[in-house]
Amino acid sequence: MIIDVHGHVTAPAELYAWKANLLSHRGAHGGKGPSISDDQIRAVHSEPHPSFGNVSHFDHIDGAGVDVQLISPRPYQMMHSERPAKIVQWFTEETNNVIHRTCELFPGRFRGVAGLPQSPDLEPGEWAGELRRTVTELGFVGALLNPDPYEGTATPPALGDRYWYPVYEALCELDVPALIHAAGCKPPAREPYSLHFIQEETVAIWSLLSSQVLRDFPDLKIVVSHGGGAIPYQVGRFLPSGVRAGGTPYLEKLRRLWFDTCLYTQEAIELLIRVVGVDRCLFGTEKPGTGSQINPENGRWFDDIHLLVDDIDWLTDAEREAIFNKNASDLFRL
Amino acid sequence: MIIDVHGHVTAPAELYAWKANLLSHRGAHGGKGPSISDDQIRAVHSEPHPSFGNVSHFDHIDGAGVDVQLISPRPYQMMHSERPAKIVQWFTEETNNVIHRTCELFPGRFRGVAGLPQSPDLEPGEWAGELRRTVTELGFVGALLNPDPYEGTATPPALGDRYWYPVYEALCELDVPALIHAAGCKPPAREPYSLHFIQEETVAIWSLLSSQVLRDFPDLKIVVSHGGGAIPYQVGRFLPSGVRAGGTPYLEKLRRLWFDTCLYTQEAIELLIRVVGVDRCLFGTEKPGTGSQINPENGRWFDDIHLLVDDIDWLTDAEREAIFNKNASDLFRL
Amino acid sequence: MIIDVHGHVTAPAELYAWKANLLSHRGAHGGKGPSISDDQIRAVHSEPHPSFGNVSHFDHIDGAGVDVQLISPRPYQMMHSERPAKIVQWFTEETNNVIHRTCELFPGRFRGVAGLPQSPDLEPGEWAGELRRTVTELGFVGALLNPDPYEGTATPPALGDRYWYPVYEALCELDVPALIHAAGCKPPAREPYSLHFIQEETVAIWSLLSSQVLRDFPDLKIVVSHGGGAIPYQVGRFLPSGVRAGGTPYLEKLRRLWFDTCLYTQEAIELLIRVVGVDRCLFGTEKPGTGSQINPENGRWFDDIHLLVDDIDWLTDAEREAIFNKNASDLFRL
Amino acid sequence: MIIDVHGHVTAPAELYAWKANLLSHRGAHGGKGPSISDDQIRAVHSEPHPSFGNVSHFDHIDGAGVDVQLISPRPYQMMHSERPAKIVQWFTEETNNVIHRTCELFPGRFRGVAGLPQSPDLEPGEWAGELRRTVTELGFVGALLNPDPYEGTATPPALGDRYWYPVYEALCELDVPALIHAAGCKPPAREPYSLHFIQEETVAIWSLLSSQVLRDFPDLKIVVSHGGGAIPYQVGRFLPSGVRAGGTPYLEKLRRLWFDTCLYTQEAIELLIRVVGVDRCLFGTEKPGTGSQINPENGRWFDDIHLLVDDIDWLTDAEREAIFNKNASDLFRL
Amino acid sequence: MIIDVHGHVTAPAELYAWKANLLSHRGAHGGKGPSISDDQIRAVHSEPHPSFGNVSHFDHIDGAGVDVQLISPRPYQMMHSERPAKIVQWFTEETNNVIHRTCELFPGRFRGVAGLPQSPDLEPGEWAGELRRTVTELGFVGALLNPDPYEGTATPPALGDRYWYPVYEALCELDVPALIHAAGCKPPAREPYSLHFIQEETVAIWSLLSSQVLRDFPDLKIVVSHGGGAIPYQVGRFLPSGVRAGGTPYLEKLRRLWFDTCLYTQEAIELLIRVVGVDRCLFGTEKPGTGSQINPENGRWFDDIHLLVDDIDWLTDAEREAIFNKNASDLFRL
Amino acid sequence: MIIDVHGHVTAPAELYAWKANLLSHRGAHGGKGPSISDDQIRAVHSEPHPSFGNVSHFDHIDGAGVDVQLISPRPYQMMHSERPAKIVQWFTEETNNVIHRTCELFPGRFRGVAGLPQSPDLEPGEWAGELRRTVTELGFVGALLNPDPYEGTATPPALGDRYWYPVYEALCELDVPALIHAAGCKPPAREPYSLHFIQEETVAIWSLLSSQVLRDFPDLKIVVSHGGGAIPYQVGRFLPSGVRAGGTPYLEKLRRLWFDTCLYTQEAIELLIRVVGVDRCLFGTEKPGTGSQINPENGRWFDDIHLLVDDIDWLTDAEREAIFNKNASDLFRL
Repeated sequence: MIIDVHGHVTAPAELYAWKANLLSHRGAHGGKGPSISDDQIRAVHSEPHPSFGNVSHFDHIDGAGVDVQLISPRPYQMMHSERPAKIVQWFTEETNNVIHRTCELFPGRFRGVAGLPQSPDLEPGEWAGELRRTVTELGFVGALLNPDPYEGTATPPALGDRYWYPVYEALCELDVPALIHAAGCKPPAREPYSLHFIQEETVAIWSLLSSQVLRDFPDLKIVVSHGGGAIPYQVGRFLPSGVRAGGTPYLEKLRRLWFDTCLYTQEAIELLIRVVGVDRCLFGTEKPGTGSQINPENGRWFDDIHLLVDDIDWLTDAEREAIFNKNASDLFRL
Repeated sequence: MIIDVHGHVTAPAELYAWKANLLSHRGAHGGKGPSISDDQIRAVHSEPHPSFGNVSHFDHIDGAGVDVQLISPRPYQMMHSERPAKIVQWFTEETNNVIHRTCELFPGRFRGVAGLPQSPDLEPGEWAGELRRTVTELGFVGALLNPDPYEGTATPPALGDRYWYPVYEALCELDVPALIHAAGCKPPAREPYSLHFIQEETVAIWSLLSSQVLRDFPDLKIVVSHGGGAIPYQVGRFLPSGVRAGGTPYLEKLRRLWFDTCLYTQEAIELLIRVVGVDRCLFGTEKPGTGSQINPENGRWFDDIHLLVDDIDWLTDAEREAIFNKNASDLFRL
Repeated sequence: MIIDVHGHVTAPAELYAWKANLLSHRGAHGGKGPSISDDQIRAVHSEPHPSFGNVSHFDHIDGAGVDVQLISPRPYQMMHSERPAKIVQWFTEETNNVIHRTCELFPGRFRGVAGLPQSPDLEPGEWAGELRRTVTELGFVGALLNPDPYEGTATPPALGDRYWYPVYEALCELDVPALIHAAGCKPPAREPYSLHFIQEETVAIWSLLSSQVLRDFPDLKIVVSHGGGAIPYQVGRFLPSGVRAGGTPYLEKLRRLWFDTCLYTQEAIELLIRVVGVDRCLFGTEKPGTGSQINPENGRWFDDIHLLVDDIDWLTDAEREAIFNKNASDLFRL
Repeated sequence: MIIDVHGHVTAPAELYAWKANLLSHRGAHGGKGPSISDDQIRAVHSEPHPSFGNVSHFDHIDGAGVDVQLISPRPYQMMHSERPAKIVQWFTEETNNVIHRTCELFPGRFRGVAGLPQSPDLEPGEWAGELRRTVTELGFVGALLNPDPYEGTATPPALGDRYWYPVYEALCELDVPALIHAAGCKPPAREPYSLHFIQEETVAIWSLLSSQVLRDFPDLKIVVSHGGGAIPYQVGRFLPSGVRAGGTPYLEKLRRLWFDTCLYTQEAIELLIRVVGVDRCLFGTEKPGTGSQINPENGRWFDDIHLLVDDIDWLTDAEREAIFNKNASDLFRL
Repeated sequence: MIIDVHGHVTAPAELYAWKANLLSHRGAHGGKGPSISDDQIRAVHSEPHPSFGNVSHFDHIDGAGVDVQLISPRPYQMMHSERPAKIVQWFTEETNNVIHRTCELFPGRFRGVAGLPQSPDLEPGEWAGELRRTVTELGFVGALLNPDPYEGTATPPALGDRYWYPVYEALCELDVPALIHAAGCKPPAREPYSLHFIQEETVAIWSLLSSQVLRDFPDLKIVVSHGGGAIPYQVGRFLPSGVRAGGTPYLEKLRRLWFDTCLYTQEAIELLIRVVGVDRCLFGTEKPGTGSQINPENGRWFDDIHLLVDDIDWLTDAEREAIFNKNASDLFRL
Repeated sequence: MIIDVHGHVTAPAELYAWKANLLSHRGAHGGKGPSISDDQIRAVHSEPHPSFGNVSHFDHIDGAGVDVQLISPRPYQMMHSERPAKIVQWFTEETNNVIHRTCELFPGRFRGVAGLPQSPDLEPGEWAGELRRTVTELGFVGALLNPDPYEGTATPPALGDRYWYPVYEALCELDVPALIHAAGCKPPAREPYSLHFIQEETVAIWSLLSSQVLRDFPDLKIVVSHGGGAIPYQVGRFLPSGVRAGGTPYLEKLRRLWFDTCLYTQEAIELLIRVVGVDRCLFGTEKPGTGSQINPENGRWFDDIHLLVDDIDWLTDAEREAIFNKNASDLFRL
């Protein structure tokens, strides 16, 4: 059995047309949600989709042998930096509702991971209400946490700052993991959102490990998306100062976090597993998504990450099982 | 025959879902347009629409006896202030393309009025390229002109400023009118977009009449939407200083502009006609749109403005004909 | 008997020379007020004034048959945005003092309406002290309320925001009406102060009616100057969404406010009365002021608004009496 | 014969009431000047004035034996930082006109020193037009130069910067001296305008002497007001680095400028003369003005600076004559 | 015996190399101080120094007959405006530690005057901790107080503002004087740090004397460096308004402060003593420092201020003794 | 023979004490360089250094078998964002001069790589002068290029922007490579400079490869420090969109750049070589520096990167030779 911890919801065009409308009226039309039928939700998972290489969501995950997929909002659509804050709240809630309905319509196939209404105009404590609603009322098993609610337009406090503590408190109270995953990226930032994900994950790990957070929240469960940004590759850079500073070795601190395998080359996945250890790796694909393109060199989908894991000859069966299933199952209590 | 100079395109949800995507990837996915079929365009005009009181676009304009409608982009969707500028350009072009296809699919029923890519990060001279394309290649008969490309986030030069001259030059060169019509309105501005339209029209008229524009561009044709904002009602306020200043009387200057009848009460339309004269009034409905709601007091659609014009007992048939048809026909050379 | 609710004080040049001095020394010379004699105050009301068409204040109001005029500070002189805040306070107090002395010198002819020291550097609660002083110590019957203390240099919270509640509390406690009336308008705003009045009144009504203010302060009495900005003319624009939202119809909400007749065309006054009803209209002239110019077409002063009201043939005598006298008399408890 | 190079115009209240009006309408009423009669100008020089210790302008300068006084605008009233720029231009021109009329009405008693319309929104080259007008058409003999057109709200380029060169070019072309004298001072600056004068003079001298200005404009004539701010007192501070840098000794460079004696203690005037030399000192009083107050300790007016000069026992008669008359007469070619 | 109240520490290059490092890593390397040996501290006082005219610190003060010198951080090195605040704290503490070690290594020769960590990102109350540490643990006798922690990049509250009260409270509680002395000066400020000292001292005196500070802290002891900036020279400017305001005469208020003699011309020192009185003058040299240059005209060091005091022929021996010794001895309780 | 392309100069404390002084006087003392003797330069290379694990620079590179080291300024010391720009210029020149003297004093052992005066207040074309000086006059073989001259305080144009073209032109004209290497990192940026290096390298590669730069400058030689930031690890993320876009495959574009091996774990170096190919890898150590710490687990210096390369069992001798020597020798024409 394969659990994919890094999937995103595939929603009907009506959700996004409604979002475009929110961004145009900025709340003046009120927050009434879009009309989306169950049939539309069913159809959008079964129909070929031009953004997904012209096959369907189910084609993708069936083809990859994914039994259970954790689905969260499409991060680049989350629009945390838009104003006024209420349109961020409305869109987050509707997206979470569509996720919930998807889980209900395909029982056993999906589990919800919540988006939070991370408007910089709200206090982090105000974001936590939606976390509570989705976990306690809708049965969600975790939440995305975006380290940059400004989406490239300003510099937020890093994740090690006490600014974020109300979110950590709620995560611990509800006992669900957070997946570190940025949202959009707007000028004056220079990079596209996809690279911004990597940059923010890099800063996130650095900040968490150089702060008190993991001491103040010993039960906090953090999963870093996309294999941890730059850190596993650049980790040697942090070891010498770790030795100089004394205390817990840096690698040990790093292994306090979890990482998904959402990397599209075998070399990278191998490096990740070697650096953080099998027990810290969770199978994740972001599929269908950015990687849903056939590789002309070998005919594989780039995001068929299970094939890359299968190809690692030095993994034992138990280790593969841990990565594909057991680690996620334990962490998310599935 | 009735010509409605103030209509906006009704487009399939796919256009707006694509827009939401642009606003999320900010150009990183490139500018490839949405897939919209002719059938989708046909259907969206014939199907009941929840935003339009659950009847269709054709129901609305057929019911109002509109023979020809000038259609432009939905202004509040134009997103001129979004960055980077290229997503404004792409969305403007695609919207104009949908307008063009709509005109082609329903021959004789619609005429195109262009949106311009009024990003504040572009020079006004750069906006004019799309005006040329739509008029010379797509047969459009006019353009929207948004006096506030910042959409409430900063203060632009008023329309009397030389900043706007490249647009006026292009309008005169192509000999097409501009409809003054603002777009969205975002914080920190206090008002919703719908009220922002009125405010911007008010400033626009004041600025044009107190500047050199109409002397420098004697052939410029400006139509002010929504009956001219506050000006016809408040015009008395400007008469005394006009007398003190000497020269052309203020009312005469005001009558150098055109105005649509897009006002939803009979008193207002009567006042407009009395102040600016029959020959300066063009029938316009914004229909279907904000006013597409049944008035519970009389069972009429609020935006059945033709009924309000019909009810004005002091208009002659020739005057009604001028308002409903001839003025627009002459001005837009239909 | 005619009561004019919208008059402004005519003060000797010394008051304004002193103001120019305040704006030059910015408080360094201290706040000692100007030396103005009773004779100077008397003279300035009887002497021809170049800003008033070369006749006197009394000529104007006598000619218009005004028996009692409510006088407040000249709004465009109020300088709320100037810094430091203490010069705003000093100037407001001295202006109110001159108003008080004027009322005393011409018993029965004038009643005071207070300016408030609306510096954005002070809290609204701090403005209320001057309201208390003028009402309880000087016998004033109302106050001006400027919705834009920044005078065009920044965007303030709209009148529906809780920011303004300390002022509403004081108005209710003292049981006096507020006249919505903006002050100056400075760059980067584009419009002159006179148009800014209209724009701010438009936003003010929209904000008050879309907020909780009138529910939270059921006894609050608000008079909107200049016939309510754009709203009575554009009111149709707000009716459909009002129906969609349910609850109190928009026109009923609008009629919760009062409006002065300070509009210089008969068409506009007629529209106002039709939209808001006779009982919500208060005679107001702003005379002498902007409109104090002879209309070359008919030899009337533009601001002889009583003639415009007289010319409305469909008003009954009782209705005229209500507008000229009774409504104001009741509202201000004169 | 005594020439006072540092006097400011005493103007009727109407000039300042008009200024207050400009600052209120910000140009909306147009630039038509105030109505000021010759009688009003005559009277304001002969009547006791509360700001001047309750005696008149003539009482002051007659009592001080001043035969010819150079009069310029009251600096703290110059309002260079106000927007839009045209109100700065209008007020500057009207003030210079009043100065001119004063010179004409009292032949031989006054000579004009121009204010310049130093709006930061204009280019320095645009300021120079008014210098040309006043010198060539009105016979003025010099100009004030304000080193801080922002009046404390921002940091301008210092006088050594090429920004100022268009003004220096015009001064040299017309062969008239400039008096360095700041204008107002507004928050966020901390100091009152009167102290701002001193601060700006201090920076001005430092900047001029550490720049190329006096080499690039060998004929430029600069008079620093108020005895040169802090520099003559603090001059020792600049001597060591001057020696280290080599070249012209600092004191020699300092003596390239002129200084007025507008200091209200004998010790200060003595220090000034010792540091810069008799030939660089010009008698100046700023009278009537800040110092127009009787000193209770000795019954003298504080600004009776001629008494302080008389009391310096080590000056020869020729030196006193140079300070009181000859230096100014030569420099201004009176 | 001569006490010099205005000396600055001469520290080994290692302190400043360490500072350069702090400014480069911005705290990332931690706050561990530099390795400086006692021998290095001894040597740097005895070796010729290129910044000091190629003689040593001891040569300077021995040559000037200074028996005891109060030494504080080099002000222009204090870097209060640098971020993050912790590097300001670290550098201040290390500098104070070097001062302490210097005092210990040369017993009786030096006494410590503390620098405070005046980062604008800290509260003034947080600065006071270092004052307590240096006075109670290290035996320091006073502290520098920089009126501009922004070092020219923004405008701080002036010293009369309640913002500064926590510092005044600590000074009074510990009963030590503060020396007003600015630090660095960065763009956009126009002036070099050395002139910024003078400007800030000028504003400091003005603000203190026009505020409640000396009434609220009757025991506060303030010494103004560099002879009080511009104030003693320009003091006449403040006398008339002092008379107008009534109350304590301005000169009496001025004499509530103390002043050092750090002025490099005899005229200036004489003026200072005459204006503030012998009892308010403390011998101070800033030596070795800016003035450590031989004057080619007389072969003296510019900063041999004791020679200038000796040359004042009208001082009595007791007065010289007060300036050289007794005033400082009493004030600092040495 | 081993060539290390990534070394930084070890300079005497006097250079940095002088830098601290520049940052304190901000140019007021002039730009005269520090006094540094040849003996000091020699000594600082041979003496144990506390920042380098208490052994010397030569101990480090001798121990690592480095025959020739390319040395550039210590990047985190470069202070590009400091103002005014002239202190950036002075410090850059003096640092380059010390590099040059070091090369001269140890013939054959070092080659210079220039720092550029990348002040954001200068145009990139102005930076190029120092490149010309160092290459043509001092024999330098390359230059550092900092993608973020603001050092974290603002967002610069990315390296793909035409802003940078003057630098690329000079590099091509002089035919020397640039090493991408950021400098310091200041608040409000969240990360320490060492992580900022990684982040900026990541953005740099992304921007270069998605722009026209390498087409417009086919001869441009770019070496990315620290193994290319996150890109080799995350490269899979860019492959699918590369396929969708068509044209040159992403990996081929990536291999247009060079990369140093400055990574402190064997896994990372292996991944780098596999992704970019042996021919694109240059041996680089940053030694002595951040990694100069003994690893307690194996007793090796972390920055003994040659041992990590030696340990890669799948490299052939020729490949090792290419990485250690030939690639650098060819690229830098050593």
